Amino acid sequence: MPETITSFQNPRLKQVKRLRDKKSRLDEGLFVIDDERDLIRALEHGYQADYALICEPLLKADERAVIKHIHPNRQFFIPKDMMHKVAYRDNPSGLVVVMKSIPQKGVSDLTPTDKPILVLVNLQKPGNIGALLRTADATGFNQVLLVDTSLDLYNPNIIRSSTGACFLQTTYALTSAEALHFLQKNAYNIVSAVVDGDIVLYKAQLRGKIAIVLGTEDVGLPDMWMQSAHQKVKIPMVGQLSDSFNVSVSGAIFMMEALRQNHF
Amino acid sequence: MPETITSFQNPRLKQVKRLRDKKSRLDEGLFVIDDERDLIRALEHGYQADYALICEPLLKADERAVIKHIHPNRQFFIPKDMMHKVAYRDNPSGLVVVMKSIPQKGVSDLTPTDKPILVLVNLQKPGNIGALLRTADATGFNQVLLVDTSLDLYNPNIIRSSTGACFLQTTYALTSAEALHFLQKNAYNIVSAVVDGDIVLYKAQLRGKIAIVLGTEDVGLPDMWMQSAHQKVKIPMVGQLSDSFNVSVSGAIFMMEALRQNHF
Repeated sequence: MPETITSFQNPRLKQVKRLRDKKSRLDEGLFVIDDERDLIRALEHGYQADYALICEPLLKADERAVIKHIHPNRQFFIPKDMMHKVAYRDNPSGLVVVMKSIPQKGVSDLTPTDKPILVLVNLQKPGNIGALLRTADATGFNQVLLVDTSLDLYNPNIIRSSTGACFLQTTYALTSAEALHFLQKNAYNIVSAVVDGDIVLYKAQLRGKIAIVLGTEDVGLPDMWMQSAHQKVKIPMVGQLSDSFNVSVSGAIFMMEALRQNHF
Repeated sequence: MPETITSFQNPRLKQVKRLRDKKSRLDEGLFVIDDERDLIRALEHGYQADYALICEPLLKADERAVIKHIHPNRQFFIPKDMMHKVAYRDNPSGLVVVMKSIPQKGVSDLTPTDKPILVLVNLQKPGNIGALLRTADATGFNQVLLVDTSLDLYNPNIIRSSTGACFLQTTYALTSAEALHFLQKNAYNIVSAVVDGDIVLYKAQLRGKIAIVLGTEDVGLPDMWMQSAHQKVKIPMVGQLSDSFNVSVSGAIFMMEALRQNHF
């Protein structure tokens, strides 16, 4: 029978709060999901639940349906005030699930394919990385290289903004040197997104085995990526503001254009 | 000489906190900017500052440069702990500026052009609306209809995610009935973004005087918009997840495709 937690000093409550921090996630090999769609996607892609904290009064029908995937002995009921305390969101769901991590894949797990690949260099905003993972899936970019990032894939904002695409196990964490070596050795066409690039997106060649490389909005790409690019490509802009696009938007525009050139 | 505020009970401090709420922004005709780039853009587009709260120890060089646009009598210095209290962000800038609003334009301000127009129906997430305003500017969509939204343009997350594009005075707040009447009377080609639309984006006709209509990710477009669409268009997707794109991404893909068809 599911147990009810009554003390704020309960070690599971403390653990859930601790898992907001990357260091704790890595040390303990666990992370937290608080959305039933994300949970379903994680379970479908090989992740296992450790235990769930459940708040009956906040539980929605969709969430109730998904609980059956978690063993009754690993379900713990908590009252509303406790859920507000442990939940990451201001407006908490009825369910917080502690999941077992799958270790991040790295360079030794990476094998070349003839499909396009997305390379994210030094991106540090979890919302952007998550949105890019979601779009990468939709557009057929089945390998994403997370280059020189300090973020882990189980950051709550990556999970949220990727709508669970982070669980597809399509990402690889690499250094710039490792990523460049892989792409060059395997003869990828390296296409770097550059605000003042010399090729306009719609004149670029994005068919076949390409690597689309995105840097940060503020500083763009490091020199080694600029020098290694076969095509430096810019998105045409006609607006009043001098700004580039948000990186999750410019990435989507590049990936869709690759899809268009390959399929239409 | 600039004055120093020393009491947490100071009415200006209270006002800045109050202006986080839409009702106060509308009642008082004021809003808050806490980023120097956004401030420059607002000033460039006809907005006036009322006063600034300045925290010397947190002030960056860029922020210092922009203060000269604010009359010394309207500059008030505050200590660090006060800035942490009034700032919207966790990691506050050295500067919070109270700005005079320009009233939201409505249907009576709207005149047809031969340029494309963006229609956002019932969007309620400020981050998405802001990102779409930014992309609309970059892609030459110089009129954006905010249809049936409960948000005001001076929501701090709209300002932030639009990087100041919300100050271009290109937006109009309308009801669905007003917007549809305007588009039909002026013979716009109404292109609705629909997940299971019958025309694939790259087969759609997006040249000339089009209105691109976007609904929410969860429920899509209301019936009246579905029935009025000349083209129901879907973005092709090849991924594992059933999901549509984030609306700020799908909007960008539509607007860029219109730009491509018109210019390339």
